Amino acid sequence: MFNKILIANRGEIALRVLRACKELGIETVAVHSTADADAMHVRLATESVCIGPPAARDSYLKIPEILAACEITGADAVHPGYGFLSENARFAEILNAHNIAFIGPSAEHIRVMGDKIEAKNTARRLGIPVVPGSDGAVTNDEDAHRIAADIGYPVLVKAAAGGGGRGMRVARSEEEMSGALSAARNEAKNAFGDDSVYIEKYLGKPRHIEIQILGDGKGNAIHIGERDCSLQRRHQKVWEEANSPALNQEQRDRIGKVCADAMAAMKYSGVGTIEFLYEDGNFYFIEMNTRLQVEHPVTEMITGIDLVNEQIKVASGAELTIRQSDVTFNGHAIECRINAENPQTFAPSPGRITYYHPPGGLGVRVDSGVYQGYSIPPHYDSLIGKLIVHGRTRVECLMRLRRCLDEFVVDGIQTTIPLFRALVDNQDIANGVYDIHWLEKFLASGQEIG
Amino acid sequence: MFNKILIANRGEIALRVLRACKELGIETVAVHSTADADAMHVRLATESVCIGPPAARDSYLKIPEILAACEITGADAVHPGYGFLSENARFAEILNAHNIAFIGPSAEHIRVMGDKIEAKNTARRLGIPVVPGSDGAVTNDEDAHRIAADIGYPVLVKAAAGGGGRGMRVARSEEEMSGALSAARNEAKNAFGDDSVYIEKYLGKPRHIEIQILGDGKGNAIHIGERDCSLQRRHQKVWEEANSPALNQEQRDRIGKVCADAMAAMKYSGVGTIEFLYEDGNFYFIEMNTRLQVEHPVTEMITGIDLVNEQIKVASGAELTIRQSDVTFNGHAIECRINAENPQTFAPSPGRITYYHPPGGLGVRVDSGVYQGYSIPPHYDSLIGKLIVHGRTRVECLMRLRRCLDEFVVDGIQTTIPLFRALVDNQDIANGVYDIHWLEKFLASGQEIG
Repeated sequence: MFNKILIANRGEIALRVLRACKELGIETVAVHSTADADAMHVRLATESVCIGPPAARDSYLKIPEILAACEITGADAVHPGYGFLSENARFAEILNAHNIAFIGPSAEHIRVMGDKIEAKNTARRLGIPVVPGSDGAVTNDEDAHRIAADIGYPVLVKAAAGGGGRGMRVARSEEEMSGALSAARNEAKNAFGDDSVYIEKYLGKPRHIEIQILGDGKGNAIHIGERDCSLQRRHQKVWEEANSPALNQEQRDRIGKVCADAMAAMKYSGVGTIEFLYEDGNFYFIEMNTRLQVEHPVTEMITGIDLVNEQIKVASGAELTIRQSDVTFNGHAIECRINAENPQTFAPSPGRITYYHPPGGLGVRVDSGVYQGYSIPPHYDSLIGKLIVHGRTRVECLMRLRRCLDEFVVDGIQTTIPLFRALVDNQDIANGVYDIHWLEKFLASGQEIG
Repeated sequence: MFNKILIANRGEIALRVLRACKELGIETVAVHSTADADAMHVRLATESVCIGPPAARDSYLKIPEILAACEITGADAVHPGYGFLSENARFAEILNAHNIAFIGPSAEHIRVMGDKIEAKNTARRLGIPVVPGSDGAVTNDEDAHRIAADIGYPVLVKAAAGGGGRGMRVARSEEEMSGALSAARNEAKNAFGDDSVYIEKYLGKPRHIEIQILGDGKGNAIHIGERDCSLQRRHQKVWEEANSPALNQEQRDRIGKVCADAMAAMKYSGVGTIEFLYEDGNFYFIEMNTRLQVEHPVTEMITGIDLVNEQIKVASGAELTIRQSDVTFNGHAIECRINAENPQTFAPSPGRITYYHPPGGLGVRVDSGVYQGYSIPPHYDSLIGKLIVHGRTRVECLMRLRRCLDEFVVDGIQTTIPLFRALVDNQDIANGVYDIHWLEKFLASGQEIG
């Protein structure tokens, strides 16, 4: 096991990693920019090193500074958290070249999964379902009709040279196909001087469902269920839950096994998330994140598995000790991302927290690096904490979440807490009936928040 | 279900009950003394009523005032918490006479279990093991020897008229019995003018183990495992855990079934705790508490069952929905009672909390009614909060507890947090090897705390 882990991150995730290290009896090094000298994880770490000015490119992204901090402190491993250098294959390679462990998968796996096309090809090869479509550009209408019929309507006809929605048409039936093809071709020809098109399965109301996986790099891998992260604003997740209100246990087991088998086959090491769009019982691969996710706590809450603890253990060379049959799902968990933002305009609201009191009690978890008197610096993303609530059922979880949102006090800055108060009272949310477009529509509807 | 519950208590348990009510969608009435006007549960309740001056006998114990508060607010039920009126049969009767539900067992059951002798007889009749001994005073030595042999050595010879340890002797073998008898008799004769003695099984190093039960008053009852509360100072529990480090699943199931069957037979309604001394694989009934216990959260943490929620549901007339087979025990939980006290002298330390920051993260629960800026009144007991930690194993739980104790900040007053830091690092505690005398010895050993 490692003796000392350097945490190459900030905010709530730096504290999350620090907690896991302390619970494993491992010393910690906090690295921080000048803007983060007062951060809670800096206060709680065994040692801390200032690595640069506020701008991330001059501190949290600066590999030579982080490497120097490792050498000065004698850290034998680095946990990258999420964001920053967490999916930087070069960083992993440099650390390894200096005999410092990167707590994450191999540089090779980071690189493959970081490339959209290679990732999709790898997924397909490993049996993970991807969006069905033409394998390349289609130039003749007969082929286009055949492919569309194979995929099943509705399909999307997309200009091969396209972008920004131009040269894109939906065909909902065979009858609409000829019109869609000629319209897309014409638009593509005019816009890009090239009328070749792709054909792809059209998803009208997909959910975002992702599978948590854990592998030991020795060919052992398990899945730890799914998270439903369909509630998004500008592709940013806002509210995540596990299990998904849309899946049953048979579906969970099936897609989970596909993912676990794929990870075992590629000898993946560490935690990772395979993201899908989901519609009408089918999963369509989007991408894989080769790191810890912001929303990992909902999985921890329903399984009792400490993902960061497991991540550290496998990075140190340990074999997986959790078998698939050990993973059981108890109750329901929801995470709300508390951002320092105006809850209506989403404008950042950095500044000093003049009063802070988190909720408590049964089934309540708060992951946050802030405290009363702390000044949120304006240089980074606006996530200041996560409220994660567990209940025996989804209904109990929602009632408990409501209660917690009433108790949570953050004064001095604006936060997105009022948005969650509006969401938890919404009937669609109560019914679990929402897709990836739902939140944008809800926000556009002029619903009063706050 | 009830519409509005009046919470006839204060402090952390008033907040605990309020949270359960909110999660059930039930309105709440906080009653409070003038000293508790700023309490958190008073702020969060639907309504609040001041019922008198600080002294509990003039407020929290004043039945007419509480009854008047029910009538003014239209509360249809009262939750008594623990302490105060929670085991007052007369209070339950008066409420019932006014068509207000008492959230607890019947007045009859409170009364029976509140009487030490009747409780022990009832327990014995219902098959709950009690401390074996002579059925009454023993006047002749031959009988005394026979009874002692039946019980098995060591035995305690106690003056029938005794008290304060006078006229008490331990006989560890048949050889010691004659000497013990004559010594006890002589001392009893001199002290009380009566040389008759009782004989009882002597427990040298017992643990305090209690069984949580839940019944619906209709003949359905389950047990929800045990709690080990052996770490006590002056008979006050300080640290509680579930499961007990001393029991295995077979023992748990066996004593649990005995208790559940007894409660089913007496048609007990609500939550209750059957307390035992435990030594060498045997349980010896001490008493039954016919109410929620301070330490109920450790049971909730390893089972996911919300005891207050269940308590309210059965009080409203619902049948038990949890079957014995639904109750499973996951991982390990420990509760530390955080008192506003000097951690070395245990002198009360009321006053204003100038800074407060509770720990967070996976497996961590804080039940506390205090907040930054709150002044702890000097009129009541010194419990200001409970830190409850869960882990997949006892080792993980202890490591997590250690981490939480490092994070917990309460400034402006003294608390018992430093005591727990000393305990969590102790080898006996790590090994789970302690009895009800352990903590007193530890404290007397002059170990530095804080």
